Amino acid sequence: MSLALTTDLYQLTMADAYLKAGVQNKHAVFDLFVRTLPKGWSYLIACGIDEALECLENFKFLPEDIDFLRKNGLSHDLCDYLMNFRFTGDVRAVDEGTPVFQNEPLLEVTGNLIEAQIVETLLLSIINYQTLVCSKASRIVEAARPATIVDFGLRRAPGPEAGVRAARAAFIAGAIATSNVEAGRRFGIPISGTHAHSFVMAFPTELEAFRAWCKAYPEGTTLLIDTYDIAQGARNACQVVREGAALKAVRIDSGDFVTNTRQVRAILNDAGLEHVRILVSGDMNENKIDALKKAEAPIDGYGVGTDMVTARPESALGGVYKLVQVDSLPRIKTSSGKATWPGAKQVWRYPDDNVDVICAYKEDAPRELLCEQGERLVLHHKVATPLLGSAMVVGRRVYIAKSVLQVAEYCKEDLSYLPAYLKDIECNTPPYRVEVSAEIRHQRNVAEAQRRLK
Amino acid sequence: MSLALTTDLYQLTMADAYLKAGVQNKHAVFDLFVRTLPKGWSYLIACGIDEALECLENFKFLPEDIDFLRKNGLSHDLCDYLMNFRFTGDVRAVDEGTPVFQNEPLLEVTGNLIEAQIVETLLLSIINYQTLVCSKASRIVEAARPATIVDFGLRRAPGPEAGVRAARAAFIAGAIATSNVEAGRRFGIPISGTHAHSFVMAFPTELEAFRAWCKAYPEGTTLLIDTYDIAQGARNACQVVREGAALKAVRIDSGDFVTNTRQVRAILNDAGLEHVRILVSGDMNENKIDALKKAEAPIDGYGVGTDMVTARPESALGGVYKLVQVDSLPRIKTSSGKATWPGAKQVWRYPDDNVDVICAYKEDAPRELLCEQGERLVLHHKVATPLLGSAMVVGRRVYIAKSVLQVAEYCKEDLSYLPAYLKDIECNTPPYRVEVSAEIRHQRNVAEAQRRLK
Repeated sequence: MSLALTTDLYQLTMADAYLKAGVQNKHAVFDLFVRTLPKGWSYLIACGIDEALECLENFKFLPEDIDFLRKNGLSHDLCDYLMNFRFTGDVRAVDEGTPVFQNEPLLEVTGNLIEAQIVETLLLSIINYQTLVCSKASRIVEAARPATIVDFGLRRAPGPEAGVRAARAAFIAGAIATSNVEAGRRFGIPISGTHAHSFVMAFPTELEAFRAWCKAYPEGTTLLIDTYDIAQGARNACQVVREGAALKAVRIDSGDFVTNTRQVRAILNDAGLEHVRILVSGDMNENKIDALKKAEAPIDGYGVGTDMVTARPESALGGVYKLVQVDSLPRIKTSSGKATWPGAKQVWRYPDDNVDVICAYKEDAPRELLCEQGERLVLHHKVATPLLGSAMVVGRRVYIAKSVLQVAEYCKEDLSYLPAYLKDIECNTPPYRVEVSAEIRHQRNVAEAQRRLK
Repeated sequence: MSLALTTDLYQLTMADAYLKAGVQNKHAVFDLFVRTLPKGWSYLIACGIDEALECLENFKFLPEDIDFLRKNGLSHDLCDYLMNFRFTGDVRAVDEGTPVFQNEPLLEVTGNLIEAQIVETLLLSIINYQTLVCSKASRIVEAARPATIVDFGLRRAPGPEAGVRAARAAFIAGAIATSNVEAGRRFGIPISGTHAHSFVMAFPTELEAFRAWCKAYPEGTTLLIDTYDIAQGARNACQVVREGAALKAVRIDSGDFVTNTRQVRAILNDAGLEHVRILVSGDMNENKIDALKKAEAPIDGYGVGTDMVTARPESALGGVYKLVQVDSLPRIKTSSGKATWPGAKQVWRYPDDNVDVICAYKEDAPRELLCEQGERLVLHHKVATPLLGSAMVVGRRVYIAKSVLQVAEYCKEDLSYLPAYLKDIECNTPPYRVEVSAEIRHQRNVAEAQRRLK
């Protein structure tokens, strides 16, 4: 995998044209942001920032990459330029685990036109997916509370590496563990797992399989009880406990979960196994979990796979990376439905007012705000916090990377400052308020007027 | 990335329990298949097989992997067992690029219980995603014909590596190129790309940007004409041609594509630029393309990203990996909605009958078939072809890997044998017929009876 070639060809053809036009040393600012939240979502959780910045730090073209580009028609000048190319720009970014909203930059890159442009695709492909999954997982975790979530997604993830990144994103959002062993090794996420249906099928009878399993895990374990008949599976689980097994939980992976979990709870309770937890898996998502909670199905935890790691049905985050300034001039795009706000920015969050204000970079937190609709907001500016901090200076990271556990704790804390109703998957109106400062609106008018003059 | 740890923990806890129960040397057969096609889809294209088999060949636990497992409670016996573990099983598989249907094995693994079980998650995470994207891309390619498809998906793909795999899958399905440079380098897929809106915004005016661009690419190029006003963009494109530029195409990335492409076509034609192609991009999928084709929008090619590389709204393929035989005994699962067919299999395709028959491994292509519903089918068995071929023997691949171009050609040819209406995204009834042989149904009854006896 070549990091530098993990890009759209047009980033390189543009670099070539910038060189030929002699504008490669213009000073550019790009914002990475999401225009609109997926339908029904109330917030996003920023994720993938650390990997993205690590990639920028290690971004370089290998000799074989240059050869490939030469053979594909890129100019000698560009190939020479890329030979010793390193990303030497500055980056300001939100911390991983921060809740963010529409139009708020997650990342702002400042550098020369080529270096700031050429990294677009790589940044987007990392941050779009991880922020998507982290945000989806947060919805699932919040819907399930107090029941717990374990990531089961690897087999349905978009490939092995995506599965590992998804496990990390889910843990940041509050999942308590993952079945993904590589994610455990790489990030220190707790791993968990029991057995599959095939284990039961590998033995002559379910009871024999349960005996073999519990003998292998005498300190306590979970049994999957729905390979054949769920009620019989529950009775077989009780039987192995009578024979001395230490059973902590049973898992059910199919059928009608309301009926099945109630029946299994009753069978376990009748056998004096009130302490044995009931876990459920099988195409779970926040809506199904919410419905099971409302139906008071006796479920203590969920294994969630496909819908969490693919964020189905949303399935993609439309994060974009847009040029907002060239040299000292604000830039805007005016395409239908794709207009942009100009200039380098800061986002101020006002926890006492439940509002974020997207400001120009140099602005202090506004004390009051005349909104576009004419309303005047007086703000508790003394407790406002800036979301974007310096993350990279001249191509080197300038922060101490947190452990995934620290990021998860930070995420939990930061989410607690948001209005509680935003975490309700059904009742997410009114949306969290995001305003744009008068200064940014002014810059937009300036950029618009400049463009019209030409 | 540790290949061997890219798994669900339960594969390892099961291996541990198999060892402890002394059943690790039982002979197991697992099938990898998809139970039902995504809603509205008429076929799948098998993809990811080659990477999956390469992973099996290289599957091993590194010393640090073993250390990690030891610290996470796996037994000393298992850790010793895994120290020199290699996959030594046999695999039969369909060729990449083969159209496949519900319940047909894409892959069949035979080996001892541990080696055949332990690779499940890795196989699924590779084949599920690539088959999903390849199948989705095939729908998009077929909807667009004769207009062409280029993959633009990297920035919205589920991470960089998924983007590279998606580009390959799309090319196999008939996309003519990708914007993804790494996919071009790794697989020899043609790469293509023009410039972004940011290039236009980096210059004082659109016209100056177009001039700089066409000067950099004097042999012919594409201009993106919708940064500000599309009609003016088209006129600016005509202007640079009058100044000597070699324009091959214009691209439009926003707005109402029917109106915009007609307007742009008229402006280009008025300037005598009938040969300049119109390309369109921006949240495209097979349904939007089909509608544009029906509206006779003058579009020559599409850049397709998000919906192709995420296969939104389906977004995941429910491929499963199921134990079907232990030693010489057929095995089945009877969970609600998740029942399986027992035993090692072959799938026979009858091109003259438009039917596939899932048979037992040793069966010849049936000459006739008594279907489950009672209907008797007489089949043109002489031209029937088996879909599963030997791919791996004792852990080594035994086929010569095709280039991605060869796989794409194979896919195109194989698709041409299917009824043409299956490629129509709207009219996919009746579904392609997949039958199960009498022998397999008999084995299922045997397995069911055996299980009941116990």
